[in-house]
Amino acid sequence: MNQLNIGIAGLGTVGSGVVNLILTHNQLHLDRSGKKLHIAAVSALEMPEELSGVLEQTKWFDDPMDLANSADIDVVIELIGGEEGIARKLVESSLIAGKSVVTANKALIAHHGSELLQLAEIHNVSLMFEASVAGGIPILRSLREGLVANSFDRVYGILNGTCNYILSEMADTGRDFSSILSEAQSLGFAEANPSTDVDGFDAAHKLSILSSLAFGTQLNFSGVFIEGIRNIRSLDIEFAHELGYCIKLLGITKRSESEIEQRVHPCMIHRDTPIAKVNGVLNAVVAEGDHVGQVVFEGAGAGQKPTASAVVGDIVDIARGRTSPPFSIPSSLFKNLNTQSMSERFGAYYIRLIVHDQSGVLAEAADVFAEEKVSIETVLQRGRDPKSTVPLILTTHDTDESSMMKVFSRLEQLKAVVEKPALIRIENFS
Amino acid sequence: MNQLNIGIAGLGTVGSGVVNLILTHNQLHLDRSGKKLHIAAVSALEMPEELSGVLEQTKWFDDPMDLANSADIDVVIELIGGEEGIARKLVESSLIAGKSVVTANKALIAHHGSELLQLAEIHNVSLMFEASVAGGIPILRSLREGLVANSFDRVYGILNGTCNYILSEMADTGRDFSSILSEAQSLGFAEANPSTDVDGFDAAHKLSILSSLAFGTQLNFSGVFIEGIRNIRSLDIEFAHELGYCIKLLGITKRSESEIEQRVHPCMIHRDTPIAKVNGVLNAVVAEGDHVGQVVFEGAGAGQKPTASAVVGDIVDIARGRTSPPFSIPSSLFKNLNTQSMSERFGAYYIRLIVHDQSGVLAEAADVFAEEKVSIETVLQRGRDPKSTVPLILTTHDTDESSMMKVFSRLEQLKAVVEKPALIRIENFS
Repeated sequence: MNQLNIGIAGLGTVGSGVVNLILTHNQLHLDRSGKKLHIAAVSALEMPEELSGVLEQTKWFDDPMDLANSADIDVVIELIGGEEGIARKLVESSLIAGKSVVTANKALIAHHGSELLQLAEIHNVSLMFEASVAGGIPILRSLREGLVANSFDRVYGILNGTCNYILSEMADTGRDFSSILSEAQSLGFAEANPSTDVDGFDAAHKLSILSSLAFGTQLNFSGVFIEGIRNIRSLDIEFAHELGYCIKLLGITKRSESEIEQRVHPCMIHRDTPIAKVNGVLNAVVAEGDHVGQVVFEGAGAGQKPTASAVVGDIVDIARGRTSPPFSIPSSLFKNLNTQSMSERFGAYYIRLIVHDQSGVLAEAADVFAEEKVSIETVLQRGRDPKSTVPLILTTHDTDESSMMKVFSRLEQLKAVVEKPALIRIENFS
Repeated sequence: MNQLNIGIAGLGTVGSGVVNLILTHNQLHLDRSGKKLHIAAVSALEMPEELSGVLEQTKWFDDPMDLANSADIDVVIELIGGEEGIARKLVESSLIAGKSVVTANKALIAHHGSELLQLAEIHNVSLMFEASVAGGIPILRSLREGLVANSFDRVYGILNGTCNYILSEMADTGRDFSSILSEAQSLGFAEANPSTDVDGFDAAHKLSILSSLAFGTQLNFSGVFIEGIRNIRSLDIEFAHELGYCIKLLGITKRSESEIEQRVHPCMIHRDTPIAKVNGVLNAVVAEGDHVGQVVFEGAGAGQKPTASAVVGDIVDIARGRTSPPFSIPSSLFKNLNTQSMSERFGAYYIRLIVHDQSGVLAEAADVFAEEKVSIETVLQRGRDPKSTVPLILTTHDTDESSMMKVFSRLEQLKAVVEKPALIRIENFS
């Protein structure tokens, strides 16, 4: 029959968005795919009020696992979330039952993508997850298809809209992290439990997927170095600005001969870098291919409609019968590369010390740098208050992280340094 | 056999790049596509020196048409160029002979894409042309695949690297069009005959392809309004800057209920627009989908390696057996929409008058605007020289182009106006 029968598990924000998009553009998707996208069944904790009318005729399952077993369903759309539990069970069972799966679940793919891919291969079905990375931006299929002729050198970007929103607001208003976070929570841009976002885990899930796809390596979430944005202060943003930089939480992955680099942390990047101007909840990804050079993608990284756009894009691919290998290569060809240790990073650093404003502090600090052979590029000292504390900002020339860390722990010990120093890596993407 | 046999017609810059890319990444492409990409035959006016070694064993045809007829070839890569002649004949014959075709030929697709698509459909083969628009940026397949779930509202962008280079250099150096053009020609960024680029035809070819793909309409190159960049002076760029704008040659296509807008002309755009910062030979395309919102793509729009990246991306798709409909929908569903007349454009305008510096000129000009009911937003007058001529710059509030054109031709008649005025459309992409 000229119809693709779809089962949807989860009718939260994204699930409702997918239902609405499929119903709104049914003719358009039929024209483009040659098949009618038909929502054959749904399963959720409860039916959202606003969908009860349009889904009145649709089969309802209390248990999402029934979607995997229903003979009337060709494709299962997993929008429950979570790396374990019912989401994982549903995806596994669906693949085993010979159904293609579309999911937006980055945690699931980051943790279990390799095994799920093997299941999909064995049962000769599709496993697609464009929505799991950078929402509406078609970055996964660009790496896998449009840019497939290239060997990739590096992929990096702004992968978490909540963090980008918070950092942009801090820059615009001069207000501090916690006050912007509370505001973001009340506006719905941040979760009640914000840790997944602000501590970098969400970006790290996405980065490990990008990394595996770009370099043909095993998914290795535990190999991602992760540092969030809680320690960024608005004074860091001001100093960054003065130095010609802005601060972004980036995910960066890079491949050398024998190792792979995977890291998520706040970065100072030049104001002139294309992604430096990507503000608010937007995401941006830069792919560097050996032939195409740098390609920059910007767009909505989350939200109901952009995420639905990505999920339904995958469904149309399945309807067209033209899906490509999810990670570009079959699982049998995945390479196992070691993760490069963070201590091997080579680059520049920004250090913020809060010190007693007394003579000799800078000399003491400079001695530490000199003894560890780390060369200082800039020193900024603002405000004088002998009775109080002031920030002392230093940036370094390129050095290796292990030397920098020695400097850092020695600075922490200095008597005049009154609180734990902060360190932000300066990334040069020229 | 686990091999895709490729015949390449044309071994100029792009053809040589394609050969080199296929040979360099043969293992990578085998891993990713499951097939060895094998260059089975080539045809060109002459064998480039640097390829004579690597293609020594490769079959050579003096007549490219032999590629279409050779039983040893699965896919024909047309890199000859030109909208008629041998390029067109080769693509037609190849499709009729049941071979898939990959081409970088924007003129051919813009003029004959509909008929070529029909041939491909009848003979059940693929016709792919990612390299024809925005070089290495995978914009066609993003519209067709990643963003396929959306109804598109508008697509626009910087589609010609030569013009973008010239305008960027004019802005950076303050030098005039003709001097930068000569320099670009000597650097190889502009052709000896620059008309195709600087008069907007190249961008218009690309725009008509984007337009058809985004909106499902017949290719309609002759419906594109085209104006090039020859009349832009560095003083316009300076005034634009003062007003918060920069000047870019853009292609813009937009669909309303019953009409389609297709235009290529210099635009003033706000400095804060994402594509305003895309300088030099780079291209950028913005796709606006009703669900995904705005997605911005930036990258190399031309050049040997980026173009080869796009061509070989298409070849890998064919090797994977997963090509999608070139224009997203089958040709039978193409709509025939009227082109919106340029006189219906509604927006703001920048006018540059060169006038005798005498009292009353501004009043005279202002009268013309008032009589045609076009409201002036800004007046800029720089430098005073009663013995000579000076620029008088006016910008308008939003108005329709037909009224603006009446103002324009009346301004031209004013005694104090000493040369043909210039008009640049101000585009607001918020």
